[in-house]
Amino acid sequence: MKICQVEKPLVATNRIAAMEHRHLQVVRDGSVSMVAVDAVGCKPGDWVICVGSSAAREAAGSIDYPSDFTIVGIIDHWNPETGES
Amino acid sequence: MKICQVEKPLVATNRIAAMEHRHLQVVRDGSVSMVAVDAVGCKPGDWVICVGSSAAREAAGSIDYPSDFTIVGIIDHWNPETGES
Amino acid sequence: MKICQVEKPLVATNRIAAMEHRHLQVVRDGSVSMVAVDAVGCKPGDWVICVGSSAAREAAGSIDYPSDFTIVGIIDHWNPETGES
Amino acid sequence: MKICQVEKPLVATNRIAAMEHRHLQVVRDGSVSMVAVDAVGCKPGDWVICVGSSAAREAAGSIDYPSDFTIVGIIDHWNPETGES
Amino acid sequence: MKICQVEKPLVATNRIAAMEHRHLQVVRDGSVSMVAVDAVGCKPGDWVICVGSSAAREAAGSIDYPSDFTIVGIIDHWNPETGES
Repeated sequence: MKICQVEKPLVATNRIAAMEHRHLQVVRDGSVSMVAVDAVGCKPGDWVICVGSSAAREAAGSIDYPSDFTIVGIIDHWNPETGES
Repeated sequence: MKICQVEKPLVATNRIAAMEHRHLQVVRDGSVSMVAVDAVGCKPGDWVICVGSSAAREAAGSIDYPSDFTIVGIIDHWNPETGES
Repeated sequence: MKICQVEKPLVATNRIAAMEHRHLQVVRDGSVSMVAVDAVGCKPGDWVICVGSSAAREAAGSIDYPSDFTIVGIIDHWNPETGES
Repeated sequence: MKICQVEKPLVATNRIAAMEHRHLQVVRDGSVSMVAVDAVGCKPGDWVICVGSSAAREAAGSIDYPSDFTIVGIIDHWNPETGES
Repeated sequence: MKICQVEKPLVATNRIAAMEHRHLQVVRDGSVSMVAVDAVGCKPGDWVICVGSSAAREAAGSIDYPSDFTIVGIIDHWNPETGES
Protein backbone atom coordinates (compact mmCIF):
# COMPACT_ATOMS: atom_id res chain seq x y z
CA MET A 1 0.00 0.00 0.00
CA LYS A 2 1.11 3.56 -0.59
CA ILE A 3 1.31 6.49 1.79
CA CYS A 4 -0.46 9.50 0.23
CA GLN A 5 -1.77 12.88 1.33
CA VAL A 6 -5.34 13.88 0.54
CA GLU A 7 -5.63 17.04 -1.53
CA LYS A 8 -9.32 17.61 -2.30
CA PRO A 9 -12.47 15.93 -3.54
CA LEU A 10 -12.81 15.36 -7.28
CA VAL A 11 -16.03 15.80 -9.22
CA ALA A 12 -16.70 13.87 -12.42
CA THR A 13 -20.39 14.30 -13.24
CA ASN A 14 -20.11 12.32 -16.45
CA ARG A 15 -18.91 8.94 -15.28
CA ILE A 16 -19.86 5.29 -15.73
CA ALA A 17 -22.82 4.09 -13.67
CA ALA A 18 -20.74 1.55 -11.75
CA MET A 19 -18.86 4.37 -9.97
CA GLU A 20 -21.94 5.94 -8.34
CA HIS A 21 -22.27 6.47 -4.58
CA ARG A 22 -18.59 6.71 -3.73
CA HIS A 23 -16.54 9.82 -3.00
CA LEU A 24 -13.41 10.40 -5.04
CA GLN A 25 -10.36 12.21 -3.66
CA VAL A 26 -7.31 13.62 -5.37
CA VAL A 27 -4.34 12.28 -3.41
CA ARG A 28 -0.66 13.07 -3.78
CA ASP A 29 1.72 10.13 -4.16
CA GLY A 30 5.11 11.81 -4.00
CA SER A 31 5.00 14.33 -6.84
CA VAL A 32 2.12 12.67 -8.70
CA SER A 33 -1.60 13.33 -8.26
CA MET A 34 -3.77 10.23 -8.31
CA VAL A 35 -7.51 9.65 -7.85
CA ALA A 36 -8.64 7.34 -5.05
CA VAL A 37 -12.02 6.09 -3.90
CA ASP A 38 -12.58 7.22 -0.30
CA ALA A 39 -13.71 4.26 1.82
CA VAL A 40 -13.01 5.81 5.22
CA GLY A 41 -14.14 9.44 5.06
CA CYS A 42 -11.06 11.65 5.05
CA LYS A 43 -10.39 15.36 4.65
CA PRO A 44 -7.75 17.42 2.83
CA GLY A 45 -4.36 17.19 4.53
CA ASP A 46 -4.89 13.69 5.96
CA TRP A 47 -2.08 11.20 5.42
CA VAL A 48 -3.70 7.99 4.26
CA ILE A 49 -3.02 4.40 3.25
CA CYS A 50 -4.10 3.64 -0.32
CA VAL A 51 -4.42 0.13 -1.68
CA GLY A 52 -4.09 -0.67 -5.38
CA SER A 53 -4.35 -3.74 -7.59
CA SER A 54 -7.44 -5.95 -7.43
CA ALA A 55 -7.66 -5.39 -3.66
CA ALA A 56 -8.86 -1.85 -4.37
CA ARG A 57 -12.13 -3.20 -5.68
CA GLU A 58 -13.17 -5.07 -2.57
CA ALA A 59 -11.81 -2.31 -0.36
CA ALA A 60 -14.20 0.05 -2.14
CA GLY A 61 -17.13 -2.06 -1.01
CA SER A 62 -17.69 -4.80 -3.56
CA ILE A 63 -15.74 -7.07 -5.87
CA ASP A 64 -17.48 -5.44 -8.82
CA TYR A 65 -16.49 -1.87 -8.02
CA PRO A 66 -14.21 -0.41 -10.73
CA SER A 67 -11.46 1.00 -8.51
CA ASP A 68 -7.71 0.42 -8.74
CA PHE A 69 -6.84 2.79 -5.85
CA THR A 70 -8.83 3.00 -2.62
CA ILE A 71 -8.20 4.85 0.64
CA VAL A 72 -8.42 2.20 3.37
CA GLY A 73 -7.08 4.00 6.47
CA ILE A 74 -6.00 7.31 7.96
CA ILE A 75 -2.52 7.24 9.53
CA ASP A 76 -2.58 8.39 13.16
CA HIS A 77 0.74 10.23 13.06
CA TRP A 78 2.95 10.81 10.06
CA ASN A 79 5.96 13.07 9.56
CA PRO A 80 6.51 13.53 5.83
CA GLU A 81 9.94 15.07 6.42
CA THR A 82 11.38 12.05 8.12
CA GLY A 83 8.92 9.46 6.93
CA GLU A 84 8.36 8.61 10.58
CA SER A 85 5.03 7.61 12.01
CA MET B 1 -6.94 5.94 -10.87
CA LYS B 2 -4.88 8.27 -13.02
CA ILE B 3 -5.64 11.73 -14.32
CA CYS B 4 -5.01 11.85 -18.07
CA GLN B 5 -5.79 14.12 -21.00
CA VAL B 6 -7.42 12.70 -24.13
CA GLU B 7 -5.37 13.21 -27.30
CA LYS B 8 -7.16 11.48 -30.15
CA PRO B 9 -8.86 8.27 -31.20
CA LEU B 10 -6.67 5.34 -32.16
CA VAL B 11 -7.38 2.97 -35.03
CA ALA B 12 -6.12 -0.61 -35.03
CA THR B 13 -7.92 -2.47 -37.78
CA ASN B 14 -6.02 -5.69 -37.17
CA ARG B 15 -6.86 -6.54 -33.58
CA ILE B 16 -8.11 -9.50 -31.62
CA ALA B 17 -11.83 -10.21 -31.84
CA ALA B 18 -12.40 -9.65 -28.13
CA MET B 19 -11.67 -5.92 -28.52
CA GLU B 20 -14.47 -5.23 -30.99
CA HIS B 21 -17.16 -2.58 -30.45
CA ARG B 22 -15.21 -0.29 -28.12
CA HIS B 23 -13.54 3.02 -28.96
CA LEU B 24 -9.87 3.42 -28.14
CA GLN B 25 -8.31 6.76 -27.22
CA VAL B 26 -4.71 7.84 -26.97
CA VAL B 27 -4.40 9.57 -23.61
CA ARG B 28 -1.46 11.40 -22.09
CA ASP B 29 -0.32 10.34 -18.63
CA GLY B 30 2.29 12.97 -17.79
CA SER B 31 4.82 12.64 -20.61
CA VAL B 32 3.74 9.16 -21.67
CA SER B 33 1.08 8.25 -24.25
CA MET B 34 -1.14 5.34 -23.29
CA VAL B 35 -4.14 3.68 -24.95
CA ALA B 36 -7.42 3.55 -23.04
CA VAL B 37 -10.81 2.05 -23.77
CA ASP B 38 -13.39 4.85 -23.81
CA ALA B 39 -16.37 3.88 -21.63
CA VAL B 40 -17.87 7.37 -21.31
CA GLY B 41 -17.60 9.05 -24.70
CA CYS B 42 -14.96 11.76 -24.48
CA LYS B 43 -13.29 14.12 -26.92
CA PRO B 44 -9.72 15.37 -27.44
CA GLY B 45 -8.66 17.78 -24.70
CA ASP B 46 -10.91 16.29 -22.00
CA TRP B 47 -9.27 15.58 -18.65
CA VAL B 48 -10.38 12.12 -17.64
CA ILE B 49 -10.11 9.51 -14.91
CA CYS B 50 -8.56 6.25 -16.11
CA VAL B 51 -8.72 3.02 -14.15
CA GLY B 52 -6.14 0.26 -14.51
CA SER B 53 -5.55 -3.21 -13.11
CA SER B 54 -8.31 -5.83 -13.28
CA ALA B 55 -10.93 -3.13 -12.63
CA ALA B 56 -10.34 -1.89 -16.18
CA ARG B 57 -12.00 -4.99 -17.56
CA GLU B 58 -15.32 -4.59 -15.81
CA ALA B 59 -15.23 -0.83 -16.35
CA ALA B 60 -15.03 -1.55 -20.08
CA GLY B 61 -18.33 -3.38 -19.92
CA SER B 62 -17.62 -7.00 -19.04
CA ILE B 63 -15.27 -9.10 -16.95
CA ASP B 64 -14.01 -10.74 -20.13
CA TYR B 65 -12.98 -7.54 -21.90
CA PRO B 66 -9.20 -7.40 -22.46
CA SER B 67 -8.52 -3.90 -21.16
CA ASP B 68 -5.97 -2.79 -18.55
CA PHE B 69 -6.80 0.93 -18.87
CA THR B 70 -10.32 2.31 -19.20
CA ILE B 71 -11.69 5.87 -19.15
CA VAL B 72 -14.39 5.88 -16.48
CA GLY B 73 -15.18 9.58 -16.03
CA ILE B 74 -14.65 13.10 -17.35
CA ILE B 75 -13.40 15.57 -14.71
CA ASP B 76 -15.68 18.62 -14.44
CA HIS B 77 -12.89 21.15 -13.82
CA TRP B 78 -9.16 20.52 -13.88
CA ASN B 79 -6.25 22.92 -13.92
CA PRO B 80 -3.17 21.02 -15.10
CA GLU B 81 -0.86 23.86 -13.98
CA THR B 82 -1.86 23.69 -10.35
CA GLY B 83 -3.35 20.23 -10.30
CA GLU B 84 -6.48 21.81 -8.86
CA SER B 85 -9.97 20.65 -9.68
CA MET C 1 -2.57 -0.38 -22.83
CA LYS C 2 0.87 0.57 -24.00
CA ILE C 3 2.14 1.55 -27.43
CA CYS C 4 5.20 -0.52 -28.32
CA GLN C 5 7.26 -1.34 -31.38
CA VAL C 6 7.97 -4.95 -32.29
CA GLU C 7 11.68 -5.81 -32.45
CA LYS C 8 11.99 -9.52 -33.14
CA PRO C 9 10.77 -12.97 -32.12
CA LEU C 10 12.18 -14.47 -28.94
CA VAL C 11 13.09 -18.13 -28.52
CA ALA C 12 13.04 -19.82 -25.12
CA THR C 13 13.26 -23.54 -25.70
CA ASN C 14 13.32 -24.34 -21.98
CA ARG C 15 10.04 -22.90 -20.75
CA ILE C 16 7.08 -24.03 -18.69
CA ALA C 17 4.55 -26.24 -20.46
CA ALA C 18 1.73 -23.71 -20.03
CA MET C 19 3.45 -21.32 -22.47
CA GLU C 20 3.43 -23.70 -25.43
CA HIS C 21 1.92 -22.84 -28.82
CA ARG C 22 2.19 -19.07 -28.63
CA HIS C 23 4.74 -16.80 -30.32
CA LEU C 24 6.75 -14.44 -28.16
CA GLN C 25 8.01 -11.08 -29.41
CA VAL C 26 10.55 -8.68 -27.98
CA VAL C 27 8.84 -5.28 -28.00
CA ARG C 28 10.26 -1.89 -27.14
CA ASP C 29 8.35 0.19 -24.59
CA GLY C 30 10.22 3.49 -24.69
CA SER C 31 13.80 2.55 -23.84
CA VAL C 32 12.92 -0.78 -22.25
CA SER C 33 12.68 -4.17 -23.98
CA MET C 34 9.77 -6.33 -22.86
CA VAL C 35 8.48 -9.74 -23.93
CA ALA C 36 4.91 -9.99 -25.19
CA VAL C 37 2.74 -12.86 -26.36
CA ASP C 38 1.73 -12.24 -29.96
CA ALA C 39 -2.03 -12.73 -30.35
CA VAL C 40 -2.39 -10.97 -33.72
CA GLY C 41 0.56 -12.01 -35.86
CA CYS C 42 2.88 -9.03 -36.22
CA LYS C 43 6.31 -8.42 -37.71
CA PRO C 44 9.39 -6.43 -36.68
CA GLY C 45 8.81 -2.69 -36.95
CA ASP C 46 5.05 -2.84 -36.36
CA TRP C 47 3.65 -0.39 -33.80
CA VAL C 48 1.33 -2.39 -31.58
CA ILE C 49 -1.05 -2.13 -28.64
CA CYS C 50 0.01 -4.29 -25.68
CA VAL C 51 -2.27 -5.09 -22.79
CA GLY C 52 -0.97 -5.97 -19.31
CA SER C 53 -2.42 -6.99 -15.98
CA SER C 54 -4.81 -9.93 -15.74
CA ALA C 55 -6.35 -8.94 -19.10
CA ALA C 56 -3.19 -10.21 -20.78
CA ARG C 57 -4.14 -13.76 -19.92
CA GLU C 58 -7.49 -13.80 -21.65
CA ALA C 59 -6.12 -11.76 -24.53
CA ALA C 60 -3.55 -14.54 -25.06
CA GLY C 61 -6.37 -17.02 -25.63
CA SER C 62 -7.41 -18.40 -22.27
CA ILE C 63 -7.81 -17.33 -18.67
CA ASP C 64 -5.18 -19.88 -17.69
CA TYR C 65 -2.44 -18.61 -19.98
CA PRO C 66 0.54 -17.25 -18.00
CA SER C 67 0.98 -13.91 -19.79
CA ASP C 68 1.17 -10.44 -18.25
CA PHE C 69 1.78 -8.65 -21.59
CA THR C 70 -0.03 -9.51 -24.82
CA ILE C 71 -0.08 -7.84 -28.22
CA VAL C 72 -3.77 -7.26 -29.02
CA GLY C 73 -3.67 -4.99 -32.07
CA ILE C 74 -1.52 -3.41 -34.77
CA ILE C 75 -1.87 0.38 -35.01
CA ASP C 76 -2.82 1.49 -38.54
CA HIS C 77 -0.71 4.66 -38.54
CA TRP C 78 1.69 5.85 -35.86
CA ASN C 79 4.29 8.59 -35.91
CA PRO C 80 6.72 7.94 -33.04
CA GLU C 81 8.21 11.44 -33.40
CA THR C 82 4.98 13.26 -32.70
CA GLY C 83 3.05 10.49 -31.03
CA GLU C 84 0.33 11.06 -33.63
CA SER C 85 -1.76 8.30 -35.13
CA MET D 1 8.63 -9.98 -5.22
CA LYS D 2 10.55 -7.05 -3.88
CA ILE D 3 13.37 -6.90 -1.35
CA CYS D 4 12.55 -4.31 1.32
CA GLN D 5 13.77 -3.32 4.76
CA VAL D 6 11.32 -3.01 7.64
CA GLU D 7 11.27 0.42 9.26
CA LYS D 8 8.57 0.40 11.93
CA PRO D 9 4.97 -0.52 12.64
CA LEU D 10 2.23 1.79 11.32
CA VAL D 11 -0.91 2.68 13.23
CA ALA D 12 -4.11 3.66 11.44
CA THR D 13 -6.90 3.59 14.00
CA ASN D 14 -9.48 4.80 11.51
CA ARG D 15 -9.45 2.11 8.86
CA ILE D 16 -11.91 -0.10 7.02
CA ALA D 17 -13.20 -3.10 8.93
CA ALA D 18 -11.75 -5.58 6.45
CA MET D 19 -8.21 -4.65 7.53
CA GLU D 20 -8.63 -5.61 11.19
CA HIS D 21 -6.39 -8.14 12.99
CA ARG D 22 -3.29 -7.70 10.86
CA HIS D 23 -0.11 -5.77 11.67
CA LEU D 24 1.05 -3.12 9.22
CA GLN D 25 4.70 -2.24 8.72
CA VAL D 26 6.35 0.68 6.98
CA VAL D 27 8.94 -0.87 4.67
CA ARG D 28 11.55 0.83 2.52
CA ASP D 29 11.65 -0.13 -1.14
CA GLY D 30 14.78 1.67 -2.36
CA SER D 31 14.09 5.31 -1.55
CA VAL D 32 10.32 4.91 -1.22
CA SER D 33 8.35 4.06 1.92
CA MET D 34 5.52 1.61 1.42
CA VAL D 35 3.02 -0.04 3.77
CA ALA D 36 2.94 -3.84 3.93
CA VAL D 37 0.81 -6.32 5.81
CA ASP D 38 3.07 -8.40 8.07
CA ALA D 39 2.29 -12.11 7.62
CA VAL D 40 5.47 -13.47 9.21
CA GLY D 41 6.18 -11.34 12.29
CA CYS D 42 9.21 -9.18 11.60
CA LYS D 43 11.02 -6.40 13.39
CA PRO D 44 12.60 -3.09 12.33
CA GLY D 45 15.79 -3.64 10.36
CA ASP D 46 14.80 -7.02 8.92
CA TRP D 47 15.31 -7.49 5.19
CA VAL D 48 12.11 -9.03 3.86
CA ILE D 49 10.43 -10.37 0.75
CA CYS D 50 7.23 -8.49 -0.14
CA VAL D 51 4.69 -9.79 -2.61
CA GLY D 52 2.34 -7.48 -4.51
CA SER D 53 -0.47 -7.84 -7.04
CA SER D 54 -3.41 -10.12 -6.28
CA ALA D 55 -1.07 -12.61 -4.58
CA ALA D 56 -0.77 -10.16 -1.67
CA ARG D 57 -4.35 -10.87 -0.69
CA GLU D 58 -3.98 -14.61 -0.20
CA ALA D 59 -0.56 -14.15 1.35
CA ALA D 60 -2.22 -11.94 3.99
CA GLY D 61 -4.43 -14.84 5.02
CA SER D 62 -7.52 -14.83 2.80
CA ILE D 63 -8.55 -14.09 -0.75
CA ASP D 64 -10.80 -11.32 0.58
CA TYR D 65 -8.11 -9.41 2.46
CA PRO D 66 -7.56 -5.93 0.97
CA SER D 67 -3.76 -5.98 0.68
CA ASP D 68 -1.64 -5.23 -2.36
CA PHE D 69 1.70 -5.66 -0.53
CA THR D 70 2.39 -8.40 2.01
CA ILE D 71 5.57 -9.48 3.80
CA VAL D 72 5.92 -13.20 3.10
CA GLY D 73 9.43 -14.02 4.32
CA ILE D 74 12.49 -12.77 6.17
CA ILE D 75 15.74 -13.10 4.23
CA ASP D 76 18.38 -15.08 6.16
CA HIS D 77 21.36 -12.99 5.01
CA TRP D 78 21.31 -9.85 2.91
CA ASN D 79 24.03 -7.33 2.15
CA PRO D 80 22.36 -4.16 0.89
CA GLU D 81 25.70 -2.75 -0.30
CA THR D 82 26.39 -5.55 -2.73
CA GLY D 83 22.87 -6.92 -3.09
CA GLU D 84 24.31 -10.29 -2.10
CA SER D 85 22.43 -12.81 0.00
CA MET E 1 7.04 -10.23 -19.33
CA LYS E 2 10.40 -8.90 -18.34
CA ILE E 3 13.89 -9.97 -19.40
CA CYS E 4 16.05 -10.52 -16.31
CA GLN E 5 19.36 -12.13 -15.43
CA VAL E 6 19.56 -14.67 -12.62
CA GLU E 7 21.97 -13.71 -9.84
CA LYS E 8 21.73 -16.38 -7.15
CA PRO E 9 19.31 -18.39 -5.02
CA LEU E 10 17.69 -16.64 -2.04
CA VAL E 11 17.09 -18.28 1.32
CA ALA E 12 14.29 -17.15 3.61
CA THR E 13 13.90 -19.78 6.30
CA ASN E 14 11.17 -17.85 8.09
CA ARG E 15 8.46 -17.56 5.47
CA ILE E 16 4.75 -18.22 5.17
CA ALA E 17 3.71 -21.83 4.73
CA ALA E 18 2.15 -21.20 1.34
CA MET E 19 5.58 -20.52 -0.17
CA GLU E 20 7.05 -23.92 0.64
CA HIS E 21 8.55 -26.26 -1.95
CA ARG E 22 9.57 -23.64 -4.53
CA HIS E 23 13.04 -22.23 -5.21
CA LEU E 24 13.50 -18.48 -5.07
CA GLN E 25 16.06 -16.63 -7.18
CA VAL E 26 17.38 -13.11 -6.99
CA VAL E 27 17.10 -11.73 -10.52
CA ARG E 28 18.30 -8.43 -11.91
CA ASP E 29 15.77 -6.29 -13.76
CA GLY E 30 17.93 -3.48 -15.14
CA SER E 31 19.52 -1.97 -12.02
CA VAL E 32 16.98 -3.41 -9.60
CA SER E 33 17.18 -6.75 -7.79
CA MET E 34 13.90 -8.63 -7.56
CA VAL E 35 12.90 -12.04 -6.17
CA ALA E 36 11.31 -14.54 -8.52
CA VAL E 37 9.93 -18.04 -8.07
CA ASP E 38 11.91 -20.44 -10.27
CA ALA E 39 9.52 -22.61 -12.27
CA VAL E 40 12.03 -23.85 -14.85
CA GLY E 41 15.25 -24.60 -12.98
CA CYS E 42 17.83 -21.99 -13.90
CA LYS E 43 21.34 -21.10 -12.78
CA PRO E 44 23.19 -17.85 -12.07
CA GLY E 45 23.91 -15.93 -15.26
CA ASP E 46 20.95 -17.25 -17.21
CA TRP E 47 18.84 -14.66 -19.06
CA VAL E 48 15.24 -15.47 -18.27
CA ILE E 49 11.65 -14.42 -18.95
CA CYS E 50 9.78 -13.40 -15.80
CA VAL E 51 6.02 -13.03 -15.66
CA GLY E 52 4.29 -10.77 -13.14
CA SER E 53 0.73 -9.85 -12.21
CA SER E 54 -1.79 -12.58 -11.40
CA ALA E 55 -0.27 -14.79 -14.11
CA ALA E 56 2.73 -15.31 -11.82
CA ARG E 57 0.59 -17.39 -9.48
CA GLU E 58 -0.48 -20.00 -12.01
CA ALA E 59 2.96 -19.99 -13.59
CA ALA E 60 4.35 -20.97 -10.17
CA GLY E 61 2.23 -24.10 -10.21
CA SER E 62 -1.16 -23.25 -8.76
CA ILE E 63 -3.66 -20.41 -8.66
CA ASP E 64 -3.19 -20.24 -4.90
CA TYR E 65 0.56 -19.75 -4.92
CA PRO E 66 1.56 -16.33 -3.52
CA SER E 67 3.92 -15.19 -6.28
CA ASP E 68 3.86 -11.94 -8.24
CA PHE E 69 7.03 -12.72 -10.24
CA THR E 70 7.83 -16.14 -11.71
CA ILE E 71 10.59 -17.33 -14.04
CA VAL E 72 8.80 -19.06 -16.92
CA GLY E 73 11.55 -19.59 -19.49
CA ILE E 74 15.26 -19.41 -20.21
CA ILE E 75 16.14 -17.36 -23.29
CA ASP E 76 18.22 -19.36 -25.80
CA HIS E 77 20.44 -16.46 -26.88
CA TRP E 78 20.50 -12.96 -25.49
CA ASN E 79 22.99 -10.14 -25.96
CA PRO E 80 22.49 -7.63 -23.15
CA GLU E 81 24.63 -5.04 -24.95
CA THR E 82 22.42 -4.84 -27.99
CA GLY E 83 19.26 -6.33 -26.57
CA GLU E 84 19.34 -8.81 -29.44
CA SER E 85 18.23 -12.41 -29.11
